[in-house]
Amino acid sequence: MDKSMTPRERVGNTASSSTNYDIVIIGAGPVGLLLSTCLARWGYKIKHIDNRPEPTKTGRADGIQPRSLDLLRNMGLKPAIMAHEPAKVYEVAFWDPSSNGIHRTGTWASCPSFIDARYPFTTLLHQGLIERVFISDLEKNGVTIQRPWTIKGFKTDEKVDSEYPVEVDLEHVDGKGKETVRAKYLFSGEGARSFVRDQLKIGIKHKDPIAHVWGVMDGVVKTDFPDIKMKCTIHSDHGSIMVIPRENDMVRLYIQIASSTDKDWNPRKSATEEEVQSSAKRILQPYNIEWERVEWYSVYPIGQGIADKYTLDHRVFMGGDACHTHSPKAGQGMNTAFLDALNLAWKIHHVEAGFADRSILETYESERKLVAENLLNFDAKYAALFSQKAPAAKDVAAATEQKSGDAEENQFIKTFKESCEFTSGYGVAYDPNALNWSASHPASSNIINPKGNKLRTGRILINSNVTRVVDANVVHLEQEIPVNGSFRVYVFAGNPSTTGQALRDLAENLKKKNSFFSSYLRPDIDSVSHHERHNPHSHFFSLCTIFASKRAEIEISRDVPDILARYRDHVYADDIWDQRVPDAKAAAHAKMGLDREKGGVIVVRPDGYVGIVSSLVEGSGTVDALNEYFAAFVTKRLGERRAQL
Amino acid sequence: MDKSMTPRERVGNTASSSTNYDIVIIGAGPVGLLLSTCLARWGYKIKHIDNRPEPTKTGRADGIQPRSLDLLRNMGLKPAIMAHEPAKVYEVAFWDPSSNGIHRTGTWASCPSFIDARYPFTTLLHQGLIERVFISDLEKNGVTIQRPWTIKGFKTDEKVDSEYPVEVDLEHVDGKGKETVRAKYLFSGEGARSFVRDQLKIGIKHKDPIAHVWGVMDGVVKTDFPDIKMKCTIHSDHGSIMVIPRENDMVRLYIQIASSTDKDWNPRKSATEEEVQSSAKRILQPYNIEWERVEWYSVYPIGQGIADKYTLDHRVFMGGDACHTHSPKAGQGMNTAFLDALNLAWKIHHVEAGFADRSILETYESERKLVAENLLNFDAKYAALFSQKAPAAKDVAAATEQKSGDAEENQFIKTFKESCEFTSGYGVAYDPNALNWSASHPASSNIINPKGNKLRTGRILINSNVTRVVDANVVHLEQEIPVNGSFRVYVFAGNPSTTGQALRDLAENLKKKNSFFSSYLRPDIDSVSHHERHNPHSHFFSLCTIFASKRAEIEISRDVPDILARYRDHVYADDIWDQRVPDAKAAAHAKMGLDREKGGVIVVRPDGYVGIVSSLVEGSGTVDALNEYFAAFVTKRLGERRAQL
Repeated sequence: MDKSMTPRERVGNTASSSTNYDIVIIGAGPVGLLLSTCLARWGYKIKHIDNRPEPTKTGRADGIQPRSLDLLRNMGLKPAIMAHEPAKVYEVAFWDPSSNGIHRTGTWASCPSFIDARYPFTTLLHQGLIERVFISDLEKNGVTIQRPWTIKGFKTDEKVDSEYPVEVDLEHVDGKGKETVRAKYLFSGEGARSFVRDQLKIGIKHKDPIAHVWGVMDGVVKTDFPDIKMKCTIHSDHGSIMVIPRENDMVRLYIQIASSTDKDWNPRKSATEEEVQSSAKRILQPYNIEWERVEWYSVYPIGQGIADKYTLDHRVFMGGDACHTHSPKAGQGMNTAFLDALNLAWKIHHVEAGFADRSILETYESERKLVAENLLNFDAKYAALFSQKAPAAKDVAAATEQKSGDAEENQFIKTFKESCEFTSGYGVAYDPNALNWSASHPASSNIINPKGNKLRTGRILINSNVTRVVDANVVHLEQEIPVNGSFRVYVFAGNPSTTGQALRDLAENLKKKNSFFSSYLRPDIDSVSHHERHNPHSHFFSLCTIFASKRAEIEISRDVPDILARYRDHVYADDIWDQRVPDAKAAAHAKMGLDREKGGVIVVRPDGYVGIVSSLVEGSGTVDALNEYFAAFVTKRLGERRAQL
Repeated sequence: MDKSMTPRERVGNTASSSTNYDIVIIGAGPVGLLLSTCLARWGYKIKHIDNRPEPTKTGRADGIQPRSLDLLRNMGLKPAIMAHEPAKVYEVAFWDPSSNGIHRTGTWASCPSFIDARYPFTTLLHQGLIERVFISDLEKNGVTIQRPWTIKGFKTDEKVDSEYPVEVDLEHVDGKGKETVRAKYLFSGEGARSFVRDQLKIGIKHKDPIAHVWGVMDGVVKTDFPDIKMKCTIHSDHGSIMVIPRENDMVRLYIQIASSTDKDWNPRKSATEEEVQSSAKRILQPYNIEWERVEWYSVYPIGQGIADKYTLDHRVFMGGDACHTHSPKAGQGMNTAFLDALNLAWKIHHVEAGFADRSILETYESERKLVAENLLNFDAKYAALFSQKAPAAKDVAAATEQKSGDAEENQFIKTFKESCEFTSGYGVAYDPNALNWSASHPASSNIINPKGNKLRTGRILINSNVTRVVDANVVHLEQEIPVNGSFRVYVFAGNPSTTGQALRDLAENLKKKNSFFSSYLRPDIDSVSHHERHNPHSHFFSLCTIFASKRAEIEISRDVPDILARYRDHVYADDIWDQRVPDAKAAAHAKMGLDREKGGVIVVRPDGYVGIVSSLVEGSGTVDALNEYFAAFVTKRLGERRAQL
């Protein structure tokens, strides 16, 4: 079997049994759906079940972070989300007790301008509507969620079947229908109560021993409380409440009903709808609140917890709430789930398509568990930040301003900034490993990590605006390559009269038979459509070229070597002024910290995180450096220079 | 019958015959559909027919101007348009003959930055997809296009039926089904060959006596011509061609096949698909072009023409191509049609809802015919601009820069700027009349048209970004009120500590019984939902208040008088920095030319054009001035001060 073919291409070749799947996914919440959507688009055969008869009807998670919205846009799903006219939270208001009920102590931007977000707000929409956006995309790729079905057992044995080592027993919830299927992978997106996790006897560690019982109410209210359309944290002498605006004039109220710090703590403590409404009335005094309609009401205990392992054998994986639970306060649940799924999706793809070594699957747990741990630590820090006295107005102003960063930053400002980065999703930083270059990476070329470079490996690419040369469209560079499972190679080409030779050398060295690029060409490369934009040569690489020139000065046929020119929709002019680097003549180069004359090369992972940054040099140096980087995790030996394409 | 009720409210009261309609609309192209969509939303009973069995399948118009995209967004239809991933034209490339085939002489922004457009590009999408967006909106309001039906006759006689004076005979195109209906209005959106126009014996005047035969081909090509994704005007020794990019990798080519200036001119001259393709091959040398697929090909003669009248009796109206035809070069057809329809829609609404005097219907022809005449004049000027030698690069640079405007502008730059304003749709300027204030308007208060004001009546409102107070969302102010048939009253409230009294006086005077505002309250005002955002008091007015303060400093309950505070979703902070007025502390005030301390009041017509601008003063002056303005065209006497609400 040709390992360089994607599964979609192999469909015709493989006589796989009808009960054999690439992956069985349990649970059609955010984590399962995003995983399923990616893998379905990339041609994998999926069995996806959920034990609910239909998608979430009401309630549950509803907050999409700025970074997650970028991701949904990159997947082409943002318009369908926005068509529901979600609420957008730009600021958080804080209310404290006063002599006469409550008073506002201040409001803070939830994603201040020092974070260079395209969408500096949280998008609030009922989880069921979000699920349906994924489900309808899945249906276009022939995947239907099998409902209401549940998992009854599973075992992995490579000796029984080395290609489909996982056996999974599935059952209709009424107990009548049963199926046993084989798969390459099993994924649990079951939520906090995970059968798979229990079977694997994977423990949950509780970072913060304090647990809480929360009451959550979604509905339409009539009130004179002025911040009802903002996210609010309200402390009063009668208790605390959190307000989250929703689509369709709805509002969500979170009320803490009990805490394990209470003297009479009982995790089964509950409260009726009426009790919660009366409590809200007392808390909101001197303002009035009346319910016109309650859409959903629920009481549930939540403890912070994190699974000890996300997988034992790199065949059976878990993600989302099955791995980490936390308070709803920071609105992180669905977002962390999305990014768990994205992280795993492309790694499974690269292994199964024969590109990457199976060992990259180990980075799923190491990268995502760290994020969950940070989230749990953050949760406590964030709570502490707000439980103290209200911050001084000047501190808030300093914290939300773009150009702070001097040594005098106090602890409050530092924590606040970290928390904004965290809640926006822009703060995720993966540690160094084979994918995220560092000084200890096997790639040791001295042109890696050039001086001035502002990108940090393991973090997402900095946003920038550029002009597409072929049609003069002003575009968001970081969005130009969709979530297609490919590494994104951004060739910042500086001044064409300076980099001409370096570009030609780059192209010639990419063409060499054992370059990272030429080692993984598409088997159907000779019959690829003239209109293919992103993957004309390889399923694993999409190439972009960005010149520090005006658009009208760039002539692709003259300035761009053939192999890069084939990506004619990915040639750009860095000629759009940017408020963040107002004096820069080439704003994108400046934001990345790359030289406007000499440029540089940025390799971004398929999930948008920076893998490595290198100089763009004459000779074979640039491709040599990238060969060293990819050699750390791909299946073939790279860099022996023999023949030309 | 209570004239202040909208038709929707009257439905229950009126025992209208099933064959009586508010309006009969002939033709479901852009002009008919936009008219129908507005009137259906505002509750009118519509009979809408089209003689085609289904919407446009291929070909026809496809260019949406920046201004039209603003309008579609304001109607909530932009997401559905953009979901089809249309091509976007940001620049136009010019190619001329050279010794070796053709060469590019330059490219120009199609909507340069001196035009402050939200979407500085033309959106290209097949007319049928655009029609379907309207049709599905119409269906939500219970209107189905009756197809394939045609009009066979009509007559207007107020003596026979003063309420439904128009009788219309309709027939299925197969001649078997027949219907006779009565209506208040008949509208012809039939296109260039209008039965209605012929019956009314309204002549067509040809501004430019030159007619052309055009060949138009839509398809997918494979070519090395570098500007195939740009709009191009190509002159070669083998003829001329125009290139327009389309959605789905398609391209449209316009080839001029014959001109009335040819010696052997024959308006019936044609060319086969193959002939046009060979011709394109010769013209594009030294570049290659091959067709992978032809979606549509048509040859049609076009002459510039304009109807002498748009209506004879203000009961039977025409719009779109029935009134004006022109070459496809400037891509104006559909856009002019949209704005014809919008102009007529709200005027019919205001007359039928009892708000405006019937005489405002006369402004439909005077306003829209002027635009068509300008368009035809422009067409000739534009053609001349490009038929001369290629302009010097410095002229193009000067023309496209934002801050030009000095006395040294040459004729080229002047014409170019005008043409950009024109093609973007931002150049439309209606002459003074009862709706568009001027010094000769009956409203003569000396606080009208305050010094410094940068708005021009009869032009659209200048774009600005502001922060909505209730939810801190950063919004586009000019889009905040949807196309709801209401006048938009923007109270720029400057510094609240300066304008406090003026605002309170404004509110008190609005409440006076015979103010323009209080004279047209909703009959159901006491039962309007708490959540109604735009029309809590009146169907004819939506009010906004904009302070020149930071959002956090504004407290609606303290700073905004009750009547304005009821529009709590329309209270804004003018606190967003704007690149166009970089030193302004209140950018929206600055862009409008209103004093940052004292503010001012802007009244915008329901179609987005500025009606009048006034100072905001203490006492009754502001409302007095607005009463004078509205008194010029509403049905009731205004301004006699008697009782309070």
